[in-house]
Amino acid sequence: MAQISTVDMSKLQELIDAVGEDSVVTSPARIDSYRWDRANDPEAGNPVAVVRANNAEDVQATIRFAAAHGIPVVPRGAGSGLSGGSSAVEGGIILSMEKMRAITIDPQTRTAVVQPGAFNSEVKIAAAEHGLWYPPDPSSFEFCSIGGNIATNAGGLCCVKYGVTADYVLGMKVVLADGREVQLGGSRLKDVAGLNLTQLFVGSEGTLGVVTEATLRLVPAQRPPTTLIATFSTLDDSTNAVLAVASTMRPSMLEFMDHTVINAVEDATGMGLDRDAAAMLVIQSDEPAEYAAQEIASIEALCTQHNASEVFATSDPEEAEAIIVARRMAIPAVEQKGTLLLEDVGVPLPRLGDLVRGMEQISQDRNVLIAVLAHAGDGNTHPLLVFDPSEESQKQRAHLAYGEVMDLAVDLGGTITGEHGVGRLKRPWLVNSIGDDALELNYRVKQALDPNNILNPGAIYDPAELENTRFL
Amino acid sequence: MAQISTVDMSKLQELIDAVGEDSVVTSPARIDSYRWDRANDPEAGNPVAVVRANNAEDVQATIRFAAAHGIPVVPRGAGSGLSGGSSAVEGGIILSMEKMRAITIDPQTRTAVVQPGAFNSEVKIAAAEHGLWYPPDPSSFEFCSIGGNIATNAGGLCCVKYGVTADYVLGMKVVLADGREVQLGGSRLKDVAGLNLTQLFVGSEGTLGVVTEATLRLVPAQRPPTTLIATFSTLDDSTNAVLAVASTMRPSMLEFMDHTVINAVEDATGMGLDRDAAAMLVIQSDEPAEYAAQEIASIEALCTQHNASEVFATSDPEEAEAIIVARRMAIPAVEQKGTLLLEDVGVPLPRLGDLVRGMEQISQDRNVLIAVLAHAGDGNTHPLLVFDPSEESQKQRAHLAYGEVMDLAVDLGGTITGEHGVGRLKRPWLVNSIGDDALELNYRVKQALDPNNILNPGAIYDPAELENTRFL
Repeated sequence: MAQISTVDMSKLQELIDAVGEDSVVTSPARIDSYRWDRANDPEAGNPVAVVRANNAEDVQATIRFAAAHGIPVVPRGAGSGLSGGSSAVEGGIILSMEKMRAITIDPQTRTAVVQPGAFNSEVKIAAAEHGLWYPPDPSSFEFCSIGGNIATNAGGLCCVKYGVTADYVLGMKVVLADGREVQLGGSRLKDVAGLNLTQLFVGSEGTLGVVTEATLRLVPAQRPPTTLIATFSTLDDSTNAVLAVASTMRPSMLEFMDHTVINAVEDATGMGLDRDAAAMLVIQSDEPAEYAAQEIASIEALCTQHNASEVFATSDPEEAEAIIVARRMAIPAVEQKGTLLLEDVGVPLPRLGDLVRGMEQISQDRNVLIAVLAHAGDGNTHPLLVFDPSEESQKQRAHLAYGEVMDLAVDLGGTITGEHGVGRLKRPWLVNSIGDDALELNYRVKQALDPNNILNPGAIYDPAELENTRFL
Repeated sequence: MAQISTVDMSKLQELIDAVGEDSVVTSPARIDSYRWDRANDPEAGNPVAVVRANNAEDVQATIRFAAAHGIPVVPRGAGSGLSGGSSAVEGGIILSMEKMRAITIDPQTRTAVVQPGAFNSEVKIAAAEHGLWYPPDPSSFEFCSIGGNIATNAGGLCCVKYGVTADYVLGMKVVLADGREVQLGGSRLKDVAGLNLTQLFVGSEGTLGVVTEATLRLVPAQRPPTTLIATFSTLDDSTNAVLAVASTMRPSMLEFMDHTVINAVEDATGMGLDRDAAAMLVIQSDEPAEYAAQEIASIEALCTQHNASEVFATSDPEEAEAIIVARRMAIPAVEQKGTLLLEDVGVPLPRLGDLVRGMEQISQDRNVLIAVLAHAGDGNTHPLLVFDPSEESQKQRAHLAYGEVMDLAVDLGGTITGEHGVGRLKRPWLVNSIGDDALELNYRVKQALDPNNILNPGAIYDPAELENTRFL
């Protein structure tokens, strides 16, 4: 049970008066369930309250209260973040958007106006009712919020063809660090009136403002895909096949699972995957039927050319779904093996083989199990570092390997985070990833928009650096 | 001939020493040709020099010199801007990128690394040599630069399906207001390490930094399109057809030309367009052949349902090209009728009819010819206000109408600029378009990144507002 900091209750009463008693959680036991996201940040602090906002006015009132008293505010969607971007801050307020989940679809402009607490899957379902599609599909789409997707510029499986969350955000309402609500962009497909602040706020992890409403671009429903699964007996063959496919075709999915992931999924599902394979690729084409058949045939030929041990293609939706479920099962299946440190490093595509082989080396050197799955088509990998939390030395080796994987990606011209965000866990590696000068620009923008560091302090930016003069 | 401000030549010698004599233009006659972009800003000032940069070091040296002496720098690509974003500033330096135009294509990562002076068409050609495609296609693609495209987040004809310049910029090198060169983003398809500064710089019109290199995303070559042309005897029928098509299908082009444009093009080409039509739509599908035929058939049915007087479809490339040339001829053809004030206001698609009818009303009220063409599928219109510059009252009425068109777009929930940028000409209307609070955020970011307002002063931001305390 978390220890609650002593707090001046007369202050908190102001907040309760502003947003209503029902919307403020102060019971330590209930607060506790809001302290962590899926990254299980061991450094998560003890918040003084959770505000469960009903509307933008509650968000504004909370931020105005926080600004007046210098209290940190950590915005929180569904708590599915993987970099500790919504770890609680000591003495702060958790601003939960879980109750704000209205979705309005406008089929004429093909847009969805969505409150931040709505789940990604709920937007997809609402769009589908109008024959439309919201493409971004993080693996967690059934339990992650649109607000969180926007905060991290979330990716997913179809991004290799359809782009990331940023590509679908046309506008937003955002509450700034002083409590004002501002409209940025809107349902216009082209708009260059002033700086592109919408895109600046996408991926800013709640550090510049809190999104209270987003206008999302929808596209016509995806065609039923044709799915191919290919296994390889060496890692090199599999990553060479990825490069050959991704540089000549445009599949709508190009996923990679290594030996460890294959076996974990097979343990969990018994669906008959090849336990001896070094790697498996899952590839889809969603082109019109005849053209998809051609595309999949070309992909099959490339896999065979790269010594695939088995290749199987299907346009049967149920068979395809079974294969995709195997991919989506990967993280939960590996999670059965121990506690996870979940990475999302990415590299330019030609370096994918180097990255995967390098991670294998780190796994051996540190004697830590690293299971690798990847959105291979865009060079974005998810090494899952597995450890037994009760064994301190194993835990320490896992944390060392976690940093080494990021260093490796950066050495290969890559990034420490492709789609999860920097949050609090990856903050120490940010400077190596983007360099001192680009980091300074980040600090300047943060300082310009949230000079008192009220919004999600500790995520992306080091609070000490914001205080001192290094970056200002 | 422009009057050259007196300038301390000993100062200028510093600049000449830094970048080399051959790269600095000081002759008034030669400077004169760099004073205006295509917007012909009547307020363009007299610069003291033009630097024709050979490389990033020249850009850095120029900006360091300018920063040291408080001299404004106006970056300039090909000078094809339409909002006065590269009008010369009195006593300033023009920083021309026309000599920096290297292009390197990497087919494996499907990226192009491009210097800012390269023309859009040159990037397209270089990509095509590898079977790849750089989609953004402003009408000026044969004579506009990639640097200018990035500065304005340029749009074009295929954006309705393929998005705008921003969607293709993965990274850039940019020289900041203090002369440092910073790498933002790169050839990674997914990267969320820190704020999305790449996207902040796209569309910032040279006011935050000067792009010295861009990494652009390429996609597989476009399939040969099927093209449909439809004429309508009323404006309402045509805009209703646009809405019906754009909200149910995904054409790769959906262009609109009104009666005046049709007749101007017919005057210029004699290609046999229907001079009586109130409006004409040019629509393409680039889906695989059989599917494109279906899509075009459905579009044809929708046009007929909305009382099209004539519909003609072709998959013959030469016939299609003749139709597209008619569309691309529109601006030069209307330019034969007088001097143009070229607008690019946009609205959410359902308001397109209101916008077009409203512009017709403004044309009547102000007795000014307004020819309308539009990237109709994304609600982005180009009203061309035609006037005889020798008739002062006509000129004044045209300028009144120019503002009224922007006011109308904003009243309809639209934007004052869809793809040309704010520049200097649209600056007075920016606050109405985005509101005081969003405008303040623009000023804060500008202040954080260019505190002395060295970079392109006068574009987007009012220099007086930057000086005074209203926004700081």
